Amino acid sequence: MDDEQDISHAPNADSASQAHPSLQSTTSWGIYRYNGTEVLSQEDTIATEAPLTIKIDGEEFATLVYTPTDTVDLVTGFLASEGLIRFVDQIESLTLEEERGFVHVKLRHLHQLSQKMVSKRFIGSCCGKSRQFYFHNDARTAKTVSTRLQLSIQQCFHLMNQLQEQSADFQATGGLHNAALCTANELLLSRADIGRHNALDKIYGHLLRQRIPVRDKVIAFSGRVSSEVALKAAKIGVGILLSKSAPTDLALRLAQDLGITVVGFIRRDHLSVYTHPERITECR
Amino acid sequence: MDDEQDISHAPNADSASQAHPSLQSTTSWGIYRYNGTEVLSQEDTIATEAPLTIKIDGEEFATLVYTPTDTVDLVTGFLASEGLIRFVDQIESLTLEEERGFVHVKLRHLHQLSQKMVSKRFIGSCCGKSRQFYFHNDARTAKTVSTRLQLSIQQCFHLMNQLQEQSADFQATGGLHNAALCTANELLLSRADIGRHNALDKIYGHLLRQRIPVRDKVIAFSGRVSSEVALKAAKIGVGILLSKSAPTDLALRLAQDLGITVVGFIRRDHLSVYTHPERITECR
Repeated sequence: MDDEQDISHAPNADSASQAHPSLQSTTSWGIYRYNGTEVLSQEDTIATEAPLTIKIDGEEFATLVYTPTDTVDLVTGFLASEGLIRFVDQIESLTLEEERGFVHVKLRHLHQLSQKMVSKRFIGSCCGKSRQFYFHNDARTAKTVSTRLQLSIQQCFHLMNQLQEQSADFQATGGLHNAALCTANELLLSRADIGRHNALDKIYGHLLRQRIPVRDKVIAFSGRVSSEVALKAAKIGVGILLSKSAPTDLALRLAQDLGITVVGFIRRDHLSVYTHPERITECR
Repeated sequence: MDDEQDISHAPNADSASQAHPSLQSTTSWGIYRYNGTEVLSQEDTIATEAPLTIKIDGEEFATLVYTPTDTVDLVTGFLASEGLIRFVDQIESLTLEEERGFVHVKLRHLHQLSQKMVSKRFIGSCCGKSRQFYFHNDARTAKTVSTRLQLSIQQCFHLMNQLQEQSADFQATGGLHNAALCTANELLLSRADIGRHNALDKIYGHLLRQRIPVRDKVIAFSGRVSSEVALKAAKIGVGILLSKSAPTDLALRLAQDLGITVVGFIRRDHLSVYTHPERITECR
């Protein structure tokens, strides 16, 4: 079939080759624009959104709506986030039908965790207080982060500025979240998606597929830091999370508990350090 | 039990009385703030986030993470959005255990639609092109909107300004989405949530519980217009959707198909009309 792409023998294929040529991250739409004085009919650039149904061993597992780029990374990261895989080798094959919005996954041995347990509420009692809010699979996959990496305040500003400069699609459409994997001094890769979790899963999948170590890395993120974003940082294993926006309290309790430094509201020359300030030079 | 609240005999109870006193939409957190010249240790206001597991007839149905206000409205709107109810009378009882994050729902007669069908991909072919992306329950519950309501550009600005003025929590925390139900000239009610869908479901639930007609109403929304937001407007039944932010292409294709006027990027004295411009006076 024309619209199938089997990467079963190329799990590390370059993500640039993943997207179906007809699926792009932006498209054009005719609008009426009021510019303060008059109404003009013109073309506008719009963020694309596409559904993707993930089938595992023939069974429907989940349907996401996403920005159709880096699809293999997204699916890999999603499977890891959900606790179904830990290493990319556990994926036996992954076949994209992007035009129809399906991806067929065969796992080498489905993790003991049955599908039914995925995303069920898990109320623990033995660990930190915030852990009562974990889901079963989160409790298994989110690990306490221990990294000696430290950033200065100026490095925080520099990384967030780099993220914004790289976000060409966001600037064109105003409709995308951006996430980047960084060292203390520079962006290594950035990913965009209409879904905040998807942008992070695309990075997670890339890390797994390219076997990139994460201990000395930072994540910079354009969106709000919700509990799911903090959990995802812990699953990925990074110790510092930078954001342009605000965190929630549950995100902070999880970050506190999981050893993640959350720096938020990074705008111009202001920022706020919410958890584990020992990793920010000026706060020790 | 102290932390249970049974509203089975009061489905129209005032939403102000819903929230458990210990659950609030914001809380306080000690932070380090860098203000451009120095690092200060201070208290910051943070958006609260809480998990809520919805059990239907004893079975776990879904878990949301949400801003713990207007819980009964949220659950009612969520059940309607998911196609499990159409009228509030179909809820036999609804018992909150907000401290533990559970809500127990009994439905008078579970809709024919089995739980398994909920959120399964539905690929249609008979209707408009964009409908191939609907889910089963969306295809059943999203209706084509026909309203003769029209707005002028100045009315769009006025409603969006009112939404922003009412958003005290958002201004304090930067972490919440706001949605409002409006007439052509004023806001009737506004709801905030860390989740864009939750803010809309709180409005939907309020409408159902108070039996408020929607044909002549408008929704103003602080967040991006994704396909799910456009679908929710169609499910609620409003014909005009105003947003401060950008729409996606799938949202626009759905809005085009379902008869919804999308006005986006409403900022200061600028705006863009994306679909069904016949409802905006200056675009006809």
